[in-house]
Amino acid sequence: MMDFRKLAAQYESELLDNVLPFWLNKSQDHEFGGYFTCLDREGNVFDTDKFIWLQAREVYMFSTMYNKLEQNKEWLDCAVQGAEFLLKHGHDGECNWYFSLDRLGNPLVEPYNIFSYTFATIAFGQLSMATGNETYAQIAKKTFDKILETRDNPKGKWSKAAVGSRQLKNFALPMILCNLALEIEHLLSPQILDKLVEDCLQEVMDVFYRPELGGIVVENVTMEGDLSDTFDGRLVNPGHAIEAMWFIMDLGVRLQREDLIAKAVKITLNMMEYGWDKEYGGIFYFMDRLGRPLQQLEWDQKLWWVHVEALVALSKGYQLTGSKACLDWFQKVHDYTWSHFKDQDYPEWFGYLNRRGEVLLPLKGGKWKGCFHVPRALYQCWKTLDTIANKQNQALSSLV
Amino acid sequence: MMDFRKLAAQYESELLDNVLPFWLNKSQDHEFGGYFTCLDREGNVFDTDKFIWLQAREVYMFSTMYNKLEQNKEWLDCAVQGAEFLLKHGHDGECNWYFSLDRLGNPLVEPYNIFSYTFATIAFGQLSMATGNETYAQIAKKTFDKILETRDNPKGKWSKAAVGSRQLKNFALPMILCNLALEIEHLLSPQILDKLVEDCLQEVMDVFYRPELGGIVVENVTMEGDLSDTFDGRLVNPGHAIEAMWFIMDLGVRLQREDLIAKAVKITLNMMEYGWDKEYGGIFYFMDRLGRPLQQLEWDQKLWWVHVEALVALSKGYQLTGSKACLDWFQKVHDYTWSHFKDQDYPEWFGYLNRRGEVLLPLKGGKWKGCFHVPRALYQCWKTLDTIANKQNQALSSLV
Repeated sequence: MMDFRKLAAQYESELLDNVLPFWLNKSQDHEFGGYFTCLDREGNVFDTDKFIWLQAREVYMFSTMYNKLEQNKEWLDCAVQGAEFLLKHGHDGECNWYFSLDRLGNPLVEPYNIFSYTFATIAFGQLSMATGNETYAQIAKKTFDKILETRDNPKGKWSKAAVGSRQLKNFALPMILCNLALEIEHLLSPQILDKLVEDCLQEVMDVFYRPELGGIVVENVTMEGDLSDTFDGRLVNPGHAIEAMWFIMDLGVRLQREDLIAKAVKITLNMMEYGWDKEYGGIFYFMDRLGRPLQQLEWDQKLWWVHVEALVALSKGYQLTGSKACLDWFQKVHDYTWSHFKDQDYPEWFGYLNRRGEVLLPLKGGKWKGCFHVPRALYQCWKTLDTIANKQNQALSSLV
Repeated sequence: MMDFRKLAAQYESELLDNVLPFWLNKSQDHEFGGYFTCLDREGNVFDTDKFIWLQAREVYMFSTMYNKLEQNKEWLDCAVQGAEFLLKHGHDGECNWYFSLDRLGNPLVEPYNIFSYTFATIAFGQLSMATGNETYAQIAKKTFDKILETRDNPKGKWSKAAVGSRQLKNFALPMILCNLALEIEHLLSPQILDKLVEDCLQEVMDVFYRPELGGIVVENVTMEGDLSDTFDGRLVNPGHAIEAMWFIMDLGVRLQREDLIAKAVKITLNMMEYGWDKEYGGIFYFMDRLGRPLQQLEWDQKLWWVHVEALVALSKGYQLTGSKACLDWFQKVHDYTWSHFKDQDYPEWFGYLNRRGEVLLPLKGGKWKGCFHVPRALYQCWKTLDTIANKQNQALSSLV
């Protein structure tokens, strides 16, 4: 039997002794504010551009650790300085969040990407909780309102889709909103929250989830909710679906809906079977549901976030339902992830492996990898494994 | 010694007996017009979207073969039907060329991409020569004028660069214009042609070529022509530079400038040394001139166009200068290319290999691979190798 106590300690120590110190010490730009995220294997800065997704996610991460783990002043200071940089430079004054800035904070890429907004929302939402600062709360709420306003046409004037052309809706936004709802619950009225959760749950679990495809989740469907035999309509992203499933499990716990938890666990297992590379191990990045050639040349690569999010979903699935299949998959993904993504010689984890599991890029952070998936997953797995260990202990004690 | 006559015959036969018949028979949409380019390993259509780059390139290819090789009615009919589809559906009525259409010709993606315009120009330019049809000539000229008008801001309203932000200029447009100038020479006034060629030569050979980096070509520089220590500013694309060098060799021949030819040959050899994968063979897709991690996850893959364009540059380099280094590299790239990209069991060539040279995607055509690089390179190599063989023969006869 697995020693869950020992396993929990492994995740805890990796978070507190390795990953959080790495970002605290290596990423902060003490001269101009904000964070460097382009960090090489040893943690040296190799590019100074600042990407709003990752700036906001680091604010979110250190605020959340402060709120949930420990009132560590260093963590709060780190979050606050990043947030102040974002407030000053990250948006146009109206909470329209740019995509990227140069080191000094000059905007480089326009606010075309709605996920800059979603990550700004959870960043300022968690930081308002940590500080009690009403300005941060207002920024989170205003940004959240912008997301609701633009969610039907998120790319706006930057869309290159021809007018009246084929339209598809994408899984990413409702999926992220399932998580965002719980992250900023303290800022929302119950009515708004209920409506948001209901809409997003319906989209994720009834529209993008496709029982007729053996129970997998697709990335894009028509506006009417039908399958589309096009490049986008055939696309499957197993890690994306699996990450969504632990958001749904959290909502299931919050709403006390066991049916939702059971369905999310089943989908997690379906996606693991579907996405696992039987030849080399690991989970594929992209797949085509009809097995046709993909546009994504990186389809067969093994990405860090896919694997650590799977660990979260599988550990939660086991904790909440006792599913043996979840436990077996957890063990398998745990072994793969710790032996391939964790850097044995330098801090933090690799992000990009080729199909065979060899390091493709030695970076610890870049345009898309920052202080987010690894620490969030380590925290989630630690707490979940601890809960399992506690339950086991109680069960054992009651036998004595 | 290499048997250049035999080698020329190998390229000739591959073009005439394998590659051109593949596109002629598999890609034409006899119902709605235009071409399917998403073709699987056996040539079956796996997606019906129509991408303007590839529609125009196929018109160009069959027109050019008709003009240069043989007045084959099937080739001309194929080019004309594709051109008529493009005329009816490919633009907005003002020669603003969309990026993609659905099978019926409805626009999917707006005219944001200037290379749709460059390929439309060479398509209608060559077809006007093949047919004498003045409408085609007018379309080519009008589209060419649009390119000149927008070349300083090619993305126009679709640009996501923040106003006043860092601006870089890109190698691709002057590089393509070097080739386009010769392809539509018959439609341009000598003044326009001279000015275009002079501008583009200067950009390619004096701005993007960097002696201080050991003589390589970079993809992006500042508007002032300086190196930029940014992701884009560090980017090197060896195949892109090598393809440009045979455009320059052709211009050198046309302008009777041996200095230009010698410099292009030297740069070709520099880029071969720089881009060759010493561990697994083949030429890398993308590199960072400072050796830092790249944004392009596909950086280590081996792409068909890179390798066939290198064959053209190296064979021309040897033919024009007798460089032994060109011949040695040609032999090496020839061996790699024919053993890895040519499909031994089904027609046409693979496009995408992983770093080890294993097939990554089994397609013969897709969103970016169509009837262009393989047949153009086979034609160019065939003719160049034939010229070398003829010269050898003459040399031998004169000895008798």
